[in-house]
Amino acid sequence: MEYQFSNRVSNLKPSAIREIFKYASDPEVISLSAGNPSPEAFPTEAVAEISAEILKTDPISVLQYSVSEGYTPLRQHIAEYMKKEHNTGSSSDDVLITTGAQQIMDLCSKALVNEGEVVICEAPSFIGSLNTFRSYNAKLVGVTVEPDGMSISELESALKANPNAKLIYTIPNFQNPSGVTMSLEKRRRVYELAKKYGALILEDNPYGDLRYSGENVPNIKSFDEDGIVIYAGSMSKVIAPGLRVAYCICPKPVFQKLVVCKQGNDVHTNIWSQYVCDEFITKYNFNNHLENLRKLYRKKAEFCMGLLDKYCAPAITYHRIDGGLFIWCELPEGVDMPEFCKKAVLNKVCVVPGNAFLTDENQTSRSFRINFTTPTDEQLEKGIKILGRLAADLG
Amino acid sequence: MEYQFSNRVSNLKPSAIREIFKYASDPEVISLSAGNPSPEAFPTEAVAEISAEILKTDPISVLQYSVSEGYTPLRQHIAEYMKKEHNTGSSSDDVLITTGAQQIMDLCSKALVNEGEVVICEAPSFIGSLNTFRSYNAKLVGVTVEPDGMSISELESALKANPNAKLIYTIPNFQNPSGVTMSLEKRRRVYELAKKYGALILEDNPYGDLRYSGENVPNIKSFDEDGIVIYAGSMSKVIAPGLRVAYCICPKPVFQKLVVCKQGNDVHTNIWSQYVCDEFITKYNFNNHLENLRKLYRKKAEFCMGLLDKYCAPAITYHRIDGGLFIWCELPEGVDMPEFCKKAVLNKVCVVPGNAFLTDENQTSRSFRINFTTPTDEQLEKGIKILGRLAADLG
Repeated sequence: MEYQFSNRVSNLKPSAIREIFKYASDPEVISLSAGNPSPEAFPTEAVAEISAEILKTDPISVLQYSVSEGYTPLRQHIAEYMKKEHNTGSSSDDVLITTGAQQIMDLCSKALVNEGEVVICEAPSFIGSLNTFRSYNAKLVGVTVEPDGMSISELESALKANPNAKLIYTIPNFQNPSGVTMSLEKRRRVYELAKKYGALILEDNPYGDLRYSGENVPNIKSFDEDGIVIYAGSMSKVIAPGLRVAYCICPKPVFQKLVVCKQGNDVHTNIWSQYVCDEFITKYNFNNHLENLRKLYRKKAEFCMGLLDKYCAPAITYHRIDGGLFIWCELPEGVDMPEFCKKAVLNKVCVVPGNAFLTDENQTSRSFRINFTTPTDEQLEKGIKILGRLAADLG
Repeated sequence: MEYQFSNRVSNLKPSAIREIFKYASDPEVISLSAGNPSPEAFPTEAVAEISAEILKTDPISVLQYSVSEGYTPLRQHIAEYMKKEHNTGSSSDDVLITTGAQQIMDLCSKALVNEGEVVICEAPSFIGSLNTFRSYNAKLVGVTVEPDGMSISELESALKANPNAKLIYTIPNFQNPSGVTMSLEKRRRVYELAKKYGALILEDNPYGDLRYSGENVPNIKSFDEDGIVIYAGSMSKVIAPGLRVAYCICPKPVFQKLVVCKQGNDVHTNIWSQYVCDEFITKYNFNNHLENLRKLYRKKAEFCMGLLDKYCAPAITYHRIDGGLFIWCELPEGVDMPEFCKKAVLNKVCVVPGNAFLTDENQTSRSFRINFTTPTDEQLEKGIKILGRLAADLG
């Protein structure tokens, strides 16, 4: 049987990361390739306690069908929390609960981007989102990520050159994969340019609460007076990803279309998970939990950067990070990066090759991404030592 | 701000059922409009027990990221169970776990149907699926549902007239909304025609285990020797819909594309739910649970049909059902059905107007759908009595 797949997906490949993730399930392989939270980060006791209680007192409420918009108390509490803590969201906005933030990319693509229309993305950017845009036959246009965020001149050129640009997709905090945080000045410029050229901003902020040093920079959504910013937040990195709970704060007319799309996508998000998240953020001192997470990850980030300095300098360079889960490493000029990553795998260390994050994967890259939250300290030391040895061999 | 939505969704309306569902949340309204299982049907103690155990012994396994294909033991157990009990699936197939069966419709549309290509649907059919196909700009072609399943002559005409028909979407058992079960002879004919004209069959079977009378008819997938049938099964009606766990049994090349699409859709399905389903079907005498479900629903179905006979005949007619959750009622010729449904709502009874289930909602219909599993017996009696009174007023 010759299957005829749609032109949306005939060239779509499995996410390099998800594929590597499978490879990395070999217990002998040290995986620096995932984007997983540390197992120590999960509030397991609270989840067990909340679950036991609701399954005892009102099981039907978490087992029956529910509404597509999401569990009402959770939507309200997120709206209040994000307003109070991050000045994010207004009375013109509404909150949609989604099955992970990945679904926000899917729903926004479906609702807003016709086939052939443009999504402007940071280059590099999160491969999962890029693949979602591709799966709707959107045309991706990449804008270089500089040390203070996307290049504003390139963004303006891209908007000028593509009057059919519908979305500007950005991860302003501790960007995946580059680790870069966009400056306040650039956030304002991105907002102004989006407004000027009639594009919407899709602000993806899964790591915003995981800042280990420096000052918080306001969300782009916090200066959205024109209803042009769609904000994507997630519980995956701050509670647990297995729950698949995320939230989208967006202008009401956009919200209404996203709800219709969600009905056709998965009807509603797992209601037990929504309930667990709601109880956890309202009754378990969420800010204290976040502070503990930051403490845990700050230590691991410092440890990882120390290992890179010790074992990999000067062959491998990297930008020091202020938060998030990833460090973006660069090999010397002239080095065959994919070959290096392959060698690493053969030596039982998994990293993600940098070209996987480009809007055009066939472009070359000297970079690769490592994660420091999933491996243990022992695994980190062993893995980075091996990378250092391989890098030294390059010279 | 004037938002420009994609041409996929600009005409897409919220599902009439989901909208009525909200309306029906008024506690004074008797809802015969949902498709919800009875609260008595949920294995709540087992879910609580399984959850407590896994959250105590290995919480990380259900809280961390997982693979897009689904929880491996669940996939294996479903493959074994469906092969053994229903001769469904073969070594050429694989099993994908999805976030409800709705997601199967979404993934299949994305992977297989280009914009403007045709999906052949039963008329009437499940509105959720129709809206999903619409959200990919598929063209819907309806084939009349006869008392023994879709019209074969209309199907062949539709396939001849639409060489770009990619999918034939059917709910062969206790069809939603008509309640009709397709005969074995017609199943074979549908299969042959799909093969002859190069279309794939999307066999949606959420109610197959809920047969209250008569003999099981083999799934179309059970005679799939050519790799042309995609089978959609669900835990929503046999365990609990809030879990959002369904499964797709399909040829491996299709499976691989659906996995890529799922990565971009929601990464993976809630892993706690998958684990709960796996434990429940393997360790809790699943067949006994199904027998109890059938007993519960058989009684409610008989009760409901008795009420229709008692209070609504002869003005309202209906086909007796052998299973499933719905009864399809018909008003006398010349009656304004939407007006009747509106009157019902004003009298605090919600039913779903039949035109909502048509490929072209602007066509007229004399039918409406009622559900008997969600309301209590008292609510059923009260609601159907009101419908009978309104129907009598018609004359």
